[in-house]
Amino acid sequence: MVSTDTFLDFFLETREHTEAICKPLEIEDYVVQPIIDVSPPKWHLGHTTWFFEEFILKSYDTSYTVFDEDFSFVFNSYYETVGKRVVRADRGNLSRPSVKKVYEYRQYVTQAMKSLLESNEDSTLLAVLEIGIHHEKQHQELLLTDIKYILGNNPLLPKYSDTFLEFTIEKGTQSWISMTEGVYEIGHNSTDFCFDNELGRHKVYLHDYQISNKLVTNAEYIEFIQAGGYKRFDLWHAAGWDWVQQNQITSPLYWYEIDGVWHYYSLNGLAEVDLDAPVTHISYFEAFAFAQYKECRLPTEFEWEAAQEQFNWGQRWEWTESAYLPYPNYKKVDGALGEYNGKFMVNQKVLRGSSIATPTKHARHTYRNFFPTDLKWQFTGIRLAK
Amino acid sequence: MVSTDTFLDFFLETREHTEAICKPLEIEDYVVQPIIDVSPPKWHLGHTTWFFEEFILKSYDTSYTVFDEDFSFVFNSYYETVGKRVVRADRGNLSRPSVKKVYEYRQYVTQAMKSLLESNEDSTLLAVLEIGIHHEKQHQELLLTDIKYILGNNPLLPKYSDTFLEFTIEKGTQSWISMTEGVYEIGHNSTDFCFDNELGRHKVYLHDYQISNKLVTNAEYIEFIQAGGYKRFDLWHAAGWDWVQQNQITSPLYWYEIDGVWHYYSLNGLAEVDLDAPVTHISYFEAFAFAQYKECRLPTEFEWEAAQEQFNWGQRWEWTESAYLPYPNYKKVDGALGEYNGKFMVNQKVLRGSSIATPTKHARHTYRNFFPTDLKWQFTGIRLAK
Amino acid sequence: MVSTDTFLDFFLETREHTEAICKPLEIEDYVVQPIIDVSPPKWHLGHTTWFFEEFILKSYDTSYTVFDEDFSFVFNSYYETVGKRVVRADRGNLSRPSVKKVYEYRQYVTQAMKSLLESNEDSTLLAVLEIGIHHEKQHQELLLTDIKYILGNNPLLPKYSDTFLEFTIEKGTQSWISMTEGVYEIGHNSTDFCFDNELGRHKVYLHDYQISNKLVTNAEYIEFIQAGGYKRFDLWHAAGWDWVQQNQITSPLYWYEIDGVWHYYSLNGLAEVDLDAPVTHISYFEAFAFAQYKECRLPTEFEWEAAQEQFNWGQRWEWTESAYLPYPNYKKVDGALGEYNGKFMVNQKVLRGSSIATPTKHARHTYRNFFPTDLKWQFTGIRLAK
Amino acid sequence: MVSTDTFLDFFLETREHTEAICKPLEIEDYVVQPIIDVSPPKWHLGHTTWFFEEFILKSYDTSYTVFDEDFSFVFNSYYETVGKRVVRADRGNLSRPSVKKVYEYRQYVTQAMKSLLESNEDSTLLAVLEIGIHHEKQHQELLLTDIKYILGNNPLLPKYSDTFLEFTIEKGTQSWISMTEGVYEIGHNSTDFCFDNELGRHKVYLHDYQISNKLVTNAEYIEFIQAGGYKRFDLWHAAGWDWVQQNQITSPLYWYEIDGVWHYYSLNGLAEVDLDAPVTHISYFEAFAFAQYKECRLPTEFEWEAAQEQFNWGQRWEWTESAYLPYPNYKKVDGALGEYNGKFMVNQKVLRGSSIATPTKHARHTYRNFFPTDLKWQFTGIRLAK
Ligand SMILES: [Fe+3]
Ligand SMILES: [Fe+3]
Ligand SMILES: [Fe+3]
Ligand SMILES: [Fe+3]
Repeated sequence: MVSTDTFLDFFLETREHTEAICKPLEIEDYVVQPIIDVSPPKWHLGHTTWFFEEFILKSYDTSYTVFDEDFSFVFNSYYETVGKRVVRADRGNLSRPSVKKVYEYRQYVTQAMKSLLESNEDSTLLAVLEIGIHHEKQHQELLLTDIKYILGNNPLLPKYSDTFLEFTIEKGTQSWISMTEGVYEIGHNSTDFCFDNELGRHKVYLHDYQISNKLVTNAEYIEFIQAGGYKRFDLWHAAGWDWVQQNQITSPLYWYEIDGVWHYYSLNGLAEVDLDAPVTHISYFEAFAFAQYKECRLPTEFEWEAAQEQFNWGQRWEWTESAYLPYPNYKKVDGALGEYNGKFMVNQKVLRGSSIATPTKHARHTYRNFFPTDLKWQFTGIRLAK
Repeated sequence: MVSTDTFLDFFLETREHTEAICKPLEIEDYVVQPIIDVSPPKWHLGHTTWFFEEFILKSYDTSYTVFDEDFSFVFNSYYETVGKRVVRADRGNLSRPSVKKVYEYRQYVTQAMKSLLESNEDSTLLAVLEIGIHHEKQHQELLLTDIKYILGNNPLLPKYSDTFLEFTIEKGTQSWISMTEGVYEIGHNSTDFCFDNELGRHKVYLHDYQISNKLVTNAEYIEFIQAGGYKRFDLWHAAGWDWVQQNQITSPLYWYEIDGVWHYYSLNGLAEVDLDAPVTHISYFEAFAFAQYKECRLPTEFEWEAAQEQFNWGQRWEWTESAYLPYPNYKKVDGALGEYNGKFMVNQKVLRGSSIATPTKHARHTYRNFFPTDLKWQFTGIRLAK
Repeated sequence: MVSTDTFLDFFLETREHTEAICKPLEIEDYVVQPIIDVSPPKWHLGHTTWFFEEFILKSYDTSYTVFDEDFSFVFNSYYETVGKRVVRADRGNLSRPSVKKVYEYRQYVTQAMKSLLESNEDSTLLAVLEIGIHHEKQHQELLLTDIKYILGNNPLLPKYSDTFLEFTIEKGTQSWISMTEGVYEIGHNSTDFCFDNELGRHKVYLHDYQISNKLVTNAEYIEFIQAGGYKRFDLWHAAGWDWVQQNQITSPLYWYEIDGVWHYYSLNGLAEVDLDAPVTHISYFEAFAFAQYKECRLPTEFEWEAAQEQFNWGQRWEWTESAYLPYPNYKKVDGALGEYNGKFMVNQKVLRGSSIATPTKHARHTYRNFFPTDLKWQFTGIRLAK
Repeated sequence: MVSTDTFLDFFLETREHTEAICKPLEIEDYVVQPIIDVSPPKWHLGHTTWFFEEFILKSYDTSYTVFDEDFSFVFNSYYETVGKRVVRADRGNLSRPSVKKVYEYRQYVTQAMKSLLESNEDSTLLAVLEIGIHHEKQHQELLLTDIKYILGNNPLLPKYSDTFLEFTIEKGTQSWISMTEGVYEIGHNSTDFCFDNELGRHKVYLHDYQISNKLVTNAEYIEFIQAGGYKRFDLWHAAGWDWVQQNQITSPLYWYEIDGVWHYYSLNGLAEVDLDAPVTHISYFEAFAFAQYKECRLPTEFEWEAAQEQFNWGQRWEWTESAYLPYPNYKKVDGALGEYNGKFMVNQKVLRGSSIATPTKHARHTYRNFFPTDLKWQFTGIRLAK
């Protein structure tokens, strides 16, 4: 059992890290929302703070005064139980509250939380706190990917940092890990923190399969492009093919062909594509088509979890063939927190592992990330199976 | 092994039945396409015929002369390997070829097939023939549901037939069938015909579950409506809730509230809703929300298949919680026929069983039907699990 | 003053002519609506009939029984005073009432009108009758252009007729008619029939101008295409340029470039473009850009009317630079008939003259036709001014 | 003839005033673009500066070094002759260049212009300079209306200023000014500056008319609302009625009904509607419907200009019934500056006068402002005629 002290440290360290991510930004970068899936950094800062105010301070701190009554409206996201949400597409139109005011809000709530935690050891409070901390860590990853989208779609292509490492090269040759048919146990199985969608440890039956020890590289993906991968409809789902046509997709996100050479915008600015690096910023549709091209397939999330000890993961969210569905006996929590995961369990694909944007203490081999099949702005990657 | 004679009979009987379905139509009814998912009856007549011309006569009958070179363009659907398809949304704009011409086309191809089959016992031909027959049977079901949509959305609400039976009441009380945890075998396991998506007989591990012996009735569904089911966002997926809001959904398709009493358009015309009949024309989103309301869930397709001998099915396509995905070791067939199923295996839900619109010799307990989560025009229904 | 007898003849001859236009159609051609601006021929047949039922028989024939109560809903167009209209985009989804039924409706109403007119000489009745006849004549022109659109966008490109003459060549060379500065009188000035938008005879001041004695030919228009007319944004309005880009416009409607030679679908089928024929099926945006290219302009409707006795018109509706606006002292009629013209007097351009599709006794030099700036399916043409 | 010195003062005073308008803004307010018609203040600052760099410094100052090559791309608007424009809807996604950088750009260009003007008295330069100054003044007005939109659509409803005066009440009773039939001269007729669309002084013939001495007040407009003005389709153009339905319009922009009392967001914050103030923020569609309701009409721009000396104008841009069309003999200037006005002369309405947001030395009685028929965010108003 983790002590309150440890939780307080964990809380404060998380709060600080969020602000550290935003250090390199200009005030203007905090405000814009170039596409609906990307939120303004200002909103992430406020929203993660609002979570603690709404679900902890309002309930457990009787002396707490709300910082600003309007913020509940502005910084709510999909928690429809709590109040009328700001329509997501409108977030980028809000110039107020100012960035300065949002940082004051953060400071105010962090202080109130600190005082509360020093005097309250209620175990249900700690349970919500732990969710709140991991909620903020999720948004830390989104902050990085959203900042990348904001800067990477600006015609001036400003860099975010000189030191952020977007990948490490996996040395050695590709080989296949063989897994044997049988019943495997899947799902969270410790007393450590996890999200509700990982619960319901259960058995699945897997047939013989093989899974790659390495992620697909840029060199392999360029081969797919050069072989006409984006022009062969037989490699794609019908919905994927429509998506390719309508959006005229011809490469991963952030790729630019300049005088015949593929370039890539990373958080360090524009540079030539590193052929040995793992391919990234591809949608599920592209991951599937690539696998078809290689006459392989994507692993299911169960195959991934059963084999994960035998390969390195953590650079890229790995698309799986699994649809995002509840585990047997999954039980949606009542109330606003219950809206967290269950309501998204339709028409999305599971991604496993974690990425270089995932904060520390947030990755787990049972973690179930999920996105629609056409999204590319996360640090996604491909691991083949057959 | 089925003899060629038997196949010829099966073929001719199928061809005749398609035309029998269209008997009650006015010529005008053959032409329109009120929504993108509904095809004009004329198109179904031509498309099923084109299949035999394209995949059999052109390959196996060296003396065959194509009826009209343009028809390949007009009656192709999603077989992108074969030629440039007519964009689906445009089908309802085509007044030509005329209905009379399409019937001549049917006659011409049926005769050519008859001659060919009398002299050719090639086994690969018979394999394609069998697919062609079942393909036409699939379109027989779509013909009925599309005709219902065309007539049921006409302000004059014309009836299709006096005798078509849309349901039979399931007598007796609702009870739960208990199934025991363990490994079950799933998928097609005989030498009879099946589609490729049923193949790859394999093991799945199921945990203890219960499944209802009856379909949900209209009375139960009206209770859900009256309890505010369409207004409680906590019962819905986020995507389902958006769909309800945007389309202002308040009831199953074809329901009209007249002076406080729910009426329903069936193929026999408009009448009061029969409270004991199984509810139908609901989307997956609605089936899911209803199950949430009852504090139950929908069965997976594996749970359904494992238990199906213990309940009656066949009136309604039953929505399952399973996403439409390939079975382990599923192998897409090469070429145009390979486009048949695999390319739809994303963002759709499996429906099991069959409906009152399904033709004879076409239903199987391993059959995997599939539709997007928002479609309502098929004869869908709900069987609960927990 | 025209006698009732003459009116009856005029009425009957108009009713017959409408049906004569539809003679070459297959039943299927009556039903479809490929774009929102085109109505199904069946609808035109019913709608022109409904006009007489609604505005004459219901008011003046006390013994009249409505043919079918639902038809008022189905065949109403924009007369919002009278009842809830069928949304225009839905017309092509209506397979019922059948074509046969619509012809019965025509017959029924024509007979009732005939009986009424034989016994009633009420002058307000005759005024409405005259509007109804000219209303039907307007729809005769739309019938022809809509039929052309339906057949001309069918992949089989069926012809409508062997004898319909789409143009006559204007012989002689192009020259400029000079008009002198001064006050001119504009608007209807006889006791003959006209629409309300032509009334309010009034003075306008025109400055010196010149207007062409001939319409622009296909040869001249091809020169514009070859000179990159569709690629030079400086020739276009900003809105016109957006329209060209979004719709990828590269030629008049119904033009197909086959092996480097421009072909044209006319009501007689597909053939090579006749270089000496007047260009047709161009939008206002294109007419304007062409005029810019020639360093000329389009005439205003006042310039056109003042000069019209000095050139031949009647083959093509001629786009003018004038916006469709009320004449001074224009007074909207009260009630449903008042909706006829006034409500369209915004964001449309005036076309003057008439076309080869305009029925007899329907053209006048004061006639004000009007369409939005992007429509091409009418028999439009270009006369330059400077 | 104005001296260069005077021009330099005029230039510097204009540059300063633009920045004064932005004084009350937070940095975040400079960045957002809530709707396509509103531009981010940052963009206005850069765009007006770019005009001087592009059309003056690059041509007349051989020693000039461009501030940043990318800015031409970022701050261009519709001048397609000059370079590839940033798609207008994307402006609000650009966090960079930063506001600080844009002010440096302004400073840099203003200084370069100052040096140039001190040594260059070229008369074509001065002509372009005068256009550039008036161009910046136009954007000053847009800055104010766009700032109002940004703040007035923020859920916190922040005020812009305590002192900005949005209206003065017109005392005295409403009466009609009678104007006599005859030929009037219209268009610019002095050596002072004007835009090209005002040129071509010409004669028009006007019939007897009356025009109001006062603008329509909020009290009168509320009467229209209460009389069901937004629910009576007979008062509206067909296109206006569709617009009302689709956008659910029920009042002027910035109006909120709170507990039965109409409130209004002005640049001074939210307050009750002042009944005697002139109504504002209404579209042409609404102005027309209001006039219909009063059994009056809107004046044409010619009627307005002929009568304008007899009433006070300058508070509100007054919608006229006139479409925005070229005057006789209007000649589009060649090159990029020629794109300025002519390309918008379709499907827009002329507004006459000026508004409380119009800067000094920018209003003229011959000024022709123009907007599409559905726009409301300018300080528009209604003057009736009959
Ligand atoms: Fe969140
Ligand atoms: Fe098919
Ligand atoms: Fe009509
Ligand atoms: Fe500008």
